Amino acid sequence: MRVGIDMGGMSIKFGLVNEKNEIVAKKVIPTELDIPALELVEKMNVAVAELLKENNVEVSQCEGIGIGSPGTIDDEHGVILYSNNFHWEHVPIVAAMKKSFPVPIGIANDADAAALGEVCAGAASDVANAVLITLGTGVGGGVIINNKIFHGPLAGGCELGHTVIVCDGESCTCGRKGCFEAYASASALIRMAREEAEHTPDSKMNEMCGADLTKMNGKIPFDAAALGDEAAIRVVEKYEYYLACGITNVINIFRPQKVVLGGGVAAQRENLTGPLTELVKKQCFGGENGGIAEIVVSELGNDAGIVGAANLVG
Amino acid sequence: MRVGIDMGGMSIKFGLVNEKNEIVAKKVIPTELDIPALELVEKMNVAVAELLKENNVEVSQCEGIGIGSPGTIDDEHGVILYSNNFHWEHVPIVAAMKKSFPVPIGIANDADAAALGEVCAGAASDVANAVLITLGTGVGGGVIINNKIFHGPLAGGCELGHTVIVCDGESCTCGRKGCFEAYASASALIRMAREEAEHTPDSKMNEMCGADLTKMNGKIPFDAAALGDEAAIRVVEKYEYYLACGITNVINIFRPQKVVLGGGVAAQRENLTGPLTELVKKQCFGGENGGIAEIVVSELGNDAGIVGAANLVG
Repeated sequence: MRVGIDMGGMSIKFGLVNEKNEIVAKKVIPTELDIPALELVEKMNVAVAELLKENNVEVSQCEGIGIGSPGTIDDEHGVILYSNNFHWEHVPIVAAMKKSFPVPIGIANDADAAALGEVCAGAASDVANAVLITLGTGVGGGVIINNKIFHGPLAGGCELGHTVIVCDGESCTCGRKGCFEAYASASALIRMAREEAEHTPDSKMNEMCGADLTKMNGKIPFDAAALGDEAAIRVVEKYEYYLACGITNVINIFRPQKVVLGGGVAAQRENLTGPLTELVKKQCFGGENGGIAEIVVSELGNDAGIVGAANLVG
Repeated sequence: MRVGIDMGGMSIKFGLVNEKNEIVAKKVIPTELDIPALELVEKMNVAVAELLKENNVEVSQCEGIGIGSPGTIDDEHGVILYSNNFHWEHVPIVAAMKKSFPVPIGIANDADAAALGEVCAGAASDVANAVLITLGTGVGGGVIINNKIFHGPLAGGCELGHTVIVCDGESCTCGRKGCFEAYASASALIRMAREEAEHTPDSKMNEMCGADLTKMNGKIPFDAAALGDEAAIRVVEKYEYYLACGITNVINIFRPQKVVLGGGVAAQRENLTGPLTELVKKQCFGGENGGIAEIVVSELGNDAGIVGAANLVG
């Protein structure tokens, strides 16, 4: 048994993961960001102890604890160097948990952990090299090479979402302009849908928002497009165009065996992967002489982070 | 002693490389592309035999032969899958050389081999993780992770030059629009310089071309900029802006310890790396919390391919 921890901006999820990579028990605590970092880590320790106790697992039976955390991680020293979401800097989380649990403890960036989860037990479990691209508020990414997280030797991680695809384009949260994230996140899709709906008052997208564009979400353009709404079709095609551009970049760089899409937009499944596959196939370097990754959607969904974190140890 | 071979579009260069990674002897033959591929490989065999004989090296003393070839390489099976420059497809070059030389023979993409050369004995010899970006006719790239070439599990290689940085931008030789190569190659620099010179008849760049813009080269805009020519300064700043954009992408993905610039434009040395360092520093994800690679120029220059190829074996 291992414990996998997925630290999110709203809640911290704990899972007890067995040798088949199944989550046999879960626990959730709120992410209290108004208390000092190490106090929150102490509450995490309590939650782990409870999770083990409730499931009759002795600490000695726990093969290890893995943590997926947002931000820039120093996995070697077990430190969260910097988390924009948490406003944390240099938090020695592994040392702080080790005081309570004398077991192997590993840490990785949360997107990296989710990618590892998909390769260990999800949509890419049949391959050893895959890239996970999460299409949520931002665009996260995790690259798995030979069943291991790749993050480069220097701090900062593999930030696929923060590679510019439209030089001088839309502003990104990272400070650059035109990042993949600014065109392929769910937030970007919503921005595109709002713009298009605003210019096309008779679009079904307006109706589906109750004529309140602040209520636009990432599902509406796909739903309206499925009904033949032309403005929505334009939005979906534009979004897929940029997404395909970034995915092709990733394939031309990493030549992974699979590209796994996660996050809210991936709920569209074949509706999304079908058109993307066609768009990407036409653009990859070397055409048919190169190997083009299959594009699939996440199988573990929100559990990928817990499963991946558990696979950082043991 | 190992033999390193660098296959170029005009000539094929052979080097005898000692254990200190010094090239102790060289040989060059023309790249005859009007004869069948395996006939040219036979001529390469003759050249290797001559190189060894002229330097009193027995085949039994040769620890191996390494080949750097343009195009898409299957290094496992020793096959050049596809070379656009050579118009070759599925050439089993390693098997064809092995008949003459029963020694270890390795093959890699030429840009990858050059990157390996810089890490083994050049500008990145003090680190194990570096990215080489060659700014020539195209933009080549080679990624070295833990002293080994990274190219992904599927055929196609790591084509950093063919990642889009300006969606729908300038046409690229690969068929896409807006690739890094279309903005950061020497060819792109020359295109930008021609455009600017055409619009600014009193620019020194026109004079330096002898008023013939077909004679523009990648050195002229830098030379004219150094003399204070405003049009040339605009060209150089524009070029560096796009180059910095692509380099930042590479850093945000690979977090290498060094970025090594090669190819003709790298002759500008600190003139280029100075402004680039400033531009890149401002854009990298995580700012000061991330590790930002030092940007340096190639030390081995045209010899990097031979040295890197030799390091594919032995």
